[in-house]
Amino acid sequence: MIKQAIKLALQKAKLNDVDLIVGGDLTNQIASSNEALKDFMVSFLGVYGACSTSMLSLIIASCFVNSSMCKNALSFASSNYGSAERQFRYPLEYGVKKKQTATTTVTGAGAVVISTKNSKIQIISATIGRVINADWDNVNDMGSAMSYAAFDTIINHLKNTHTTPEFYDLILTGDLSEVGSNILKDLFLQEGIELKNYQDAGNIIFDNKKQKDVYCGGSGCACLALTSYGYIFDQMVKKKLKDILLIGTGCLHSKISTSQKEKIPVIAHLVHLRRV
Amino acid sequence: MIKQAIKLALQKAKLNDVDLIVGGDLTNQIASSNEALKDFMVSFLGVYGACSTSMLSLIIASCFVNSSMCKNALSFASSNYGSAERQFRYPLEYGVKKKQTATTTVTGAGAVVISTKNSKIQIISATIGRVINADWDNVNDMGSAMSYAAFDTIINHLKNTHTTPEFYDLILTGDLSEVGSNILKDLFLQEGIELKNYQDAGNIIFDNKKQKDVYCGGSGCACLALTSYGYIFDQMVKKKLKDILLIGTGCLHSKISTSQKEKIPVIAHLVHLRRV
Repeated sequence: MIKQAIKLALQKAKLNDVDLIVGGDLTNQIASSNEALKDFMVSFLGVYGACSTSMLSLIIASCFVNSSMCKNALSFASSNYGSAERQFRYPLEYGVKKKQTATTTVTGAGAVVISTKNSKIQIISATIGRVINADWDNVNDMGSAMSYAAFDTIINHLKNTHTTPEFYDLILTGDLSEVGSNILKDLFLQEGIELKNYQDAGNIIFDNKKQKDVYCGGSGCACLALTSYGYIFDQMVKKKLKDILLIGTGCLHSKISTSQKEKIPVIAHLVHLRRV
Repeated sequence: MIKQAIKLALQKAKLNDVDLIVGGDLTNQIASSNEALKDFMVSFLGVYGACSTSMLSLIIASCFVNSSMCKNALSFASSNYGSAERQFRYPLEYGVKKKQTATTTVTGAGAVVISTKNSKIQIISATIGRVINADWDNVNDMGSAMSYAAFDTIINHLKNTHTTPEFYDLILTGDLSEVGSNILKDLFLQEGIELKNYQDAGNIIFDNKKQKDVYCGGSGCACLALTSYGYIFDQMVKKKLKDILLIGTGCLHSKISTSQKEKIPVIAHLVHLRRV
């Protein structure tokens, strides 16, 4: 899956290879990414940011290209429903009933090539998130926990860039789900800011109303990667969107840390893209 | 441990905080790092490169500082013997007998501050490794597998920088152990190059002759970090060493990937430091 995404991205960028690949996934020791990268003899930086991985790797890859340390780079993120369920909860075969606030890990891999060449979509800026203690330990509702990280990063970005939410045609979070994205809107309302042009990739990647088995929507590293690198980029190229913010949000717990009754640390990384 | 290392590094650099922290450890989902970072309200990039993590994070942190995206950054790496044994093999309480080729994960955390300010030690260049398929599956002898990654990265670095091993006062690999470091020397000999001024951090962090219970030497993210940021930096400041290469080597498997009979992918990242 990761290999396919990388090959497809290179093919679309009309490149045989890149100078650097940055990426990760949800498996322990990002084993899926490392296994896939054996087939690409390219410098590789492995990262882990849970569901924020897509933006984490995009920010690092673009920093290397921007600093002229390499001509081009590829950033990817991947997740898999079955592996994530088996690793963080129970193997699917057990048939454990999920809570209504749970989300469904998106199976997929998204990759994007960053280069100094002119392109229709440009990276304008980024805000790297900090680890937030949301004082939350419910692994069946991670959207709520991550909403606090998304709020922190978006607010910091708006302050640092002296912009308001209205400046952007779309503010797209990764996988807060129905519950989390409503909390995020409430957090902004408390600051006197109404979040317009706001969507959550977890809410739009599935048809939540028809697909009842996805519970509260999509999640996982691939959720924002597939939604943005696919659907949203297409909307940008078609000139329906100009300035957008992508916010990758992640729950940074492990199965062991939650068993040890540790709270779930959360993080969010943000990238500002513009159609030029 | 991670918190202590970060605080100590900040204290030595006479800083209250930095703009960015980059780091990781060996636990699933780098849970220890994420847990520790809750106490630092600083932008954080989490990375995973197994025992190569110290150099992986140092390279990324220095890229952000070099590109003027931040004034200063802190890079850290940490590992813990008990957690690593429990996670990758068996809990220590089981008393499972180890093989003679096995290494001992170093318990520790090493942190270093990178800044544009003048310092006695400068980062000259870096070579980011690629994932190598060493066709190796013995988790009781990871030094052998990693030696191939170290060889690939060092050879590439020498070619790219048009230097020879003699140019450097010290070439220090992370944790190849007695077995792996001998293989690395043999690989160079096959190319007609005798590796002089070469050491392995896993061979010098313990007194292998006296401490029989460490088996083949030290390993883990902290092995190279502690040896270099501590002992080697001290030697550089004392003008005993000028140009050195630090090579972080890592085995990129997970417990699940080896159970599934996958081979161990390996990687090595290299940093060239100079006393100025």
